[in-house]
Amino acid sequence: MKTLNVALADRSYPIYIGKDLLSQQSLLQQHIKGKEVLVVTNETIAPLYLDRLVASLDGYQTEAVVLPDGEQFKTLEVLNQVFDKLLASRFSRKVTLLALGGGVIGDMAGFAAACYQRGVPFIQVPTTLLSQVDSSVGGKTAVNHALGKNMIGAFYQPQCVIADTNTLNTLEDRQLASGIAEVIKYGLISDPAFFDWLEENIDKLTSRDPAALAYAIERSCQDKADVVAKDETEQGVRALLNLGHTFGHAIETGMGYGNWLHGEAIATGMLMAADLSARMGWMSESDVSRIKTLFEQAGLPVTGPKGMSPQQFMDLMAVDKKVQDGVIRLILLRGIGKAVISDDYDKAKLQQTLDFFQA
Amino acid sequence: MKTLNVALADRSYPIYIGKDLLSQQSLLQQHIKGKEVLVVTNETIAPLYLDRLVASLDGYQTEAVVLPDGEQFKTLEVLNQVFDKLLASRFSRKVTLLALGGGVIGDMAGFAAACYQRGVPFIQVPTTLLSQVDSSVGGKTAVNHALGKNMIGAFYQPQCVIADTNTLNTLEDRQLASGIAEVIKYGLISDPAFFDWLEENIDKLTSRDPAALAYAIERSCQDKADVVAKDETEQGVRALLNLGHTFGHAIETGMGYGNWLHGEAIATGMLMAADLSARMGWMSESDVSRIKTLFEQAGLPVTGPKGMSPQQFMDLMAVDKKVQDGVIRLILLRGIGKAVISDDYDKAKLQQTLDFFQA
Repeated sequence: MKTLNVALADRSYPIYIGKDLLSQQSLLQQHIKGKEVLVVTNETIAPLYLDRLVASLDGYQTEAVVLPDGEQFKTLEVLNQVFDKLLASRFSRKVTLLALGGGVIGDMAGFAAACYQRGVPFIQVPTTLLSQVDSSVGGKTAVNHALGKNMIGAFYQPQCVIADTNTLNTLEDRQLASGIAEVIKYGLISDPAFFDWLEENIDKLTSRDPAALAYAIERSCQDKADVVAKDETEQGVRALLNLGHTFGHAIETGMGYGNWLHGEAIATGMLMAADLSARMGWMSESDVSRIKTLFEQAGLPVTGPKGMSPQQFMDLMAVDKKVQDGVIRLILLRGIGKAVISDDYDKAKLQQTLDFFQA
Repeated sequence: MKTLNVALADRSYPIYIGKDLLSQQSLLQQHIKGKEVLVVTNETIAPLYLDRLVASLDGYQTEAVVLPDGEQFKTLEVLNQVFDKLLASRFSRKVTLLALGGGVIGDMAGFAAACYQRGVPFIQVPTTLLSQVDSSVGGKTAVNHALGKNMIGAFYQPQCVIADTNTLNTLEDRQLASGIAEVIKYGLISDPAFFDWLEENIDKLTSRDPAALAYAIERSCQDKADVVAKDETEQGVRALLNLGHTFGHAIETGMGYGNWLHGEAIATGMLMAADLSARMGWMSESDVSRIKTLFEQAGLPVTGPKGMSPQQFMDLMAVDKKVQDGVIRLILLRGIGKAVISDDYDKAKLQQTLDFFQA
């Protein structure tokens, strides 16, 4: 088992990465303060792992709430089911919420924990590659609104994260690829050596080699933790982690939540950011090709969704959180491993990129 | 104009108390950082003060959302109307929310500000006595759930509070009395000299003497700010501010939100706490009589609501936030001005109090 520390003063917490961690009672129990536990999970994960987790919670007053599975259910309305369960169980301020599932479950359980009685502890048990390398680090929690993704939420840190790599064995190929997109993102933002490693080892990841997966998770979490420690509430450098997200959120919102997986949308979004960067002469065409090839090898989409016009795309981008004083701020690339925040890109070239990808 | 400071490290903020502050442009504008403003108000207040406030916001991109008036609308569902308006207006992370109204509006606008894009600034402009002396200090924001009051919320501090005493002129008598209940609470908790002053000046408050009101607001805010500065997130001493609230919330939930005003419910709740304290020999019968007389002079109820059985009352108290490990913690009195947190009171005597008030 590997242990990483996310350094955030009095909100610091450990990430445990390894095999069969779900069954390690003491690991879980040392981070639960009271005697009340609510497991928040979904219909896909519950039959696979809920019993195993509950078995590790012997001696606690444990309840579970099983939500529908999918980004389209990440709403205030479904969140209310968590509050219903907490209140019907008469759980107090000492309850610990346990998020068992992917990023949607982590985001919702974390936001529910942030709000229930104005804040109770929670623990992340991410069961997808995407959530193990992304939402498990950084304390962003949220639900979606019909007019924008992750628009209602909180910065709220967990007590710990338990990333059990065994849970990746039951992941669908498309979900695995979606996680690999996020892994590649860390290479693109600030870690060119990791990008090189990914080019050499992409086949091992897609074939679920346990050692390669564990290495990719650890390095991704470390890269992300380094950024988050510098800027917890996204006043500056943390925005770099949104590479591909302004484009990607437009795809997710435009196509209806859940039709494109998050990793698929941001893969295309990162390629669009690379394309725009190349059009402005900030990076080479050959680097754009390397990115495109790696995404293709991972089984990720490299063109925009059919049926969305460039204008629709632009309208959706304009409601993203990265908009400031009416200008869409984008994360662009000055090369592989050199992401930059920019609001002085060429608007005509952005239009060209949208036209090219939505042709 | 009086200025008080609520000392909370980097979340400190000023409270301004005085006449006609709504029209003082510069006071408001110095606390607004961006150019986007959403005023959150309700159907009662909007016709009275919205135009005056908007006139002070010349040069800003100002929108308003007008919510229905009443505690029964303090729900996640109505909260979503604020998010709808923010997103339809394409307001960014730089938006400032401006709460114009009583405690319900302050709680909802504050919670919306805490959650929108994971946190944007907000300013409180409380227009009721209750909200000027209570919710304007301390950063508690929340909405209700069918199973319990203020169960979903956040600790979130405003940029400033602007308490314009002119707005009290349009307040209904019953609303004024509800605010006086909260003023009396500060005397009961920790300020016996203020309680004496209130006994001498209660007629001036009910007849809206401006100097008496301003003094009562200032002293109440100062008393509350002193407690909050010691314990922002209610780990300890802040719980004293909940005197009368566990009983009072049971009344509000049991009678349906909005039928009993908050101040009416906590007045009865405080008297129940005093009654239980006296039954245990912690305070004298004569002090209980002083409290009862003062409430009666203020026009506040001194018996429990008809139609709620003692058992119903107890069940509702059991879901309050003050429950820890299954025990209902109460704020009780060791005399006027000496509130204490207790979970070792006599349960049989609590039953006697409920039987007595719900007879």
